[in-house]
Amino acid sequence: MAGETVITVIGNLTEDPELRYTPSGAAVAKFRVASTPRTFDRASGEWRDGEAMFLSCNAWRNLAENVAETLSRGSRIIVQGRLRQRSYETREGEKRTVFELEVDEIGPSLRYATAKVQKVSRGAGGGGGSRSGGGAPSDDPWATASPAPAGRSGGGGFDDEPPF
Amino acid sequence: MAGETVITVIGNLTEDPELRYTPSGAAVAKFRVASTPRTFDRASGEWRDGEAMFLSCNAWRNLAENVAETLSRGSRIIVQGRLRQRSYETREGEKRTVFELEVDEIGPSLRYATAKVQKVSRGAGGGGGSRSGGGAPSDDPWATASPAPAGRSGGGGFDDEPPF
Amino acid sequence: MAGETVITVIGNLTEDPELRYTPSGAAVAKFRVASTPRTFDRASGEWRDGEAMFLSCNAWRNLAENVAETLSRGSRIIVQGRLRQRSYETREGEKRTVFELEVDEIGPSLRYATAKVQKVSRGAGGGGGSRSGGGAPSDDPWATASPAPAGRSGGGGFDDEPPF
Amino acid sequence: MAGETVITVIGNLTEDPELRYTPSGAAVAKFRVASTPRTFDRASGEWRDGEAMFLSCNAWRNLAENVAETLSRGSRIIVQGRLRQRSYETREGEKRTVFELEVDEIGPSLRYATAKVQKVSRGAGGGGGSRSGGGAPSDDPWATASPAPAGRSGGGGFDDEPPF
Repeated sequence: MAGETVITVIGNLTEDPELRYTPSGAAVAKFRVASTPRTFDRASGEWRDGEAMFLSCNAWRNLAENVAETLSRGSRIIVQGRLRQRSYETREGEKRTVFELEVDEIGPSLRYATAKVQKVSRGAGGGGGSRSGGGAPSDDPWATASPAPAGRSGGGGFDDEPPF
Repeated sequence: MAGETVITVIGNLTEDPELRYTPSGAAVAKFRVASTPRTFDRASGEWRDGEAMFLSCNAWRNLAENVAETLSRGSRIIVQGRLRQRSYETREGEKRTVFELEVDEIGPSLRYATAKVQKVSRGAGGGGGSRSGGGAPSDDPWATASPAPAGRSGGGGFDDEPPF
Repeated sequence: MAGETVITVIGNLTEDPELRYTPSGAAVAKFRVASTPRTFDRASGEWRDGEAMFLSCNAWRNLAENVAETLSRGSRIIVQGRLRQRSYETREGEKRTVFELEVDEIGPSLRYATAKVQKVSRGAGGGGGSRSGGGAPSDDPWATASPAPAGRSGGGGFDDEPPF
Repeated sequence: MAGETVITVIGNLTEDPELRYTPSGAAVAKFRVASTPRTFDRASGEWRDGEAMFLSCNAWRNLAENVAETLSRGSRIIVQGRLRQRSYETREGEKRTVFELEVDEIGPSLRYATAKVQKVSRGAGGGGGSRSGGGAPSDDPWATASPAPAGRSGGGGFDDEPPF
């Protein structure tokens, strides 16, 4: 994928991440981040919280499982991904659009915390593995992708809509 | 302002920018950018357009006037600003939230075009000036701000909602 | 290309862009941007210039030619590209490394200026064309690239070192 | 601070972070990140590593101590900060410039790892606290800063050069 809008957001999880699996066995974690800017008030000489921005995020496969094991409500994180717009219809037939972040990289912030990091190996591509009873299909772009945003961009035919 | 989510978007204007003035005489230009990612299809060896992302943008004061004079529907641009969420109620009383970009810097892209650039001086703070018959109030953070994102972040009390 | 460090810089050209051609006829424009942060001094209530950052930039093909025609010393710009480190040896045999920006998108800033934008069509891939007396080779990744960072990432074998 | 070049880098630590203290008792952690892009080779259908970029990073105060406790050589991280250029003279009197990242936010990447996160409270501003036997001076911008890049920008007079 190219020409995408890559952004980095710093904020706190509003809830525990929700982990599900697609029919083909791919893990996906969904969570929401609240990012609150602050304004310096020259009159009082103090910082004040501005209006928070809430952004829904989707992480996939190994990353999804690691997110679900590591993060919880309130966790402060730094996350990078591709900003995406998704349209859908409400039950009443109204068209709505939402902004979402397709997560490429995420970590717990070390600003107010330390962390004990543990490497995991879940098998290639992840999320497939034993759960899907066979691993990811060979034409699955997720299967070989790893540190590469462009390689993880889903791609035609893959059921990459979050199952919730 | 600090802790904001600064993003850069590349895309095309969906319409001509709309220029208005706040009651206090500050110019604001509103426009929408369509940013279209592309996926490389390994099977066909070709790039394909992905789903476009549409983002509403607000530019203020001098920048607003320069945008309105320079850009038009279809213009390819590069824009940097602070991603912001704004909530409002529909006439039916439903709560909605939209994402917007508060523009800090913008220019016409030179990818498929050249440009003749001309410096303008509209007086400090801009948009106020002669138009408002009085200039910006002395406590207006816009008045002295210029190349500084943090300095242009509006701030309490200022009528910084776009007048449309 | 994936996993690259994409950054956006706002600053001013320290000199006119220098335009050259590779042996295969590809245009490349080289220029340097000075980006100066500002600190708000609470004591004096004023903004002060910080230490400038200087970054060398390379733009290629059509973009290179458009840059050379549009921008000049002092131009304020907004530029996005991939931050890259390049190593070389001095004549004395010392190893040095420099940081450079491989430009993906650039435009003159509208903060203090307006611009008259004019579309150009130079033929596919650009810079090759009549100058190289033959157009870009068919296996040249630049030939089809356009709004896509990943498509313009040079690639093996292509003489993508700036010829200066 | 405003008008700074904020970037996000994903990569691996080349060594364990080095933790030191300024004379005034502020902790600073210095480390180097290697970020390696990958190119998709259409001919072979495989991803290949590109040339790595190495970037020196400085983290301060609480963040510095948390970095030193959490990360080690090889750790994959996501880090956001302000890109900065620093000039110095070699012993031979030659002028050199280096690029550095002043870290604002950093976390261990969850791509290949999980983490047990633990909140820490080290006292306001951190690094000062009990270690320096006196706490941060009241006019120290670090003392009150927290999630805010602009608030942590050091500023005149503060000994914010890393002590190594």
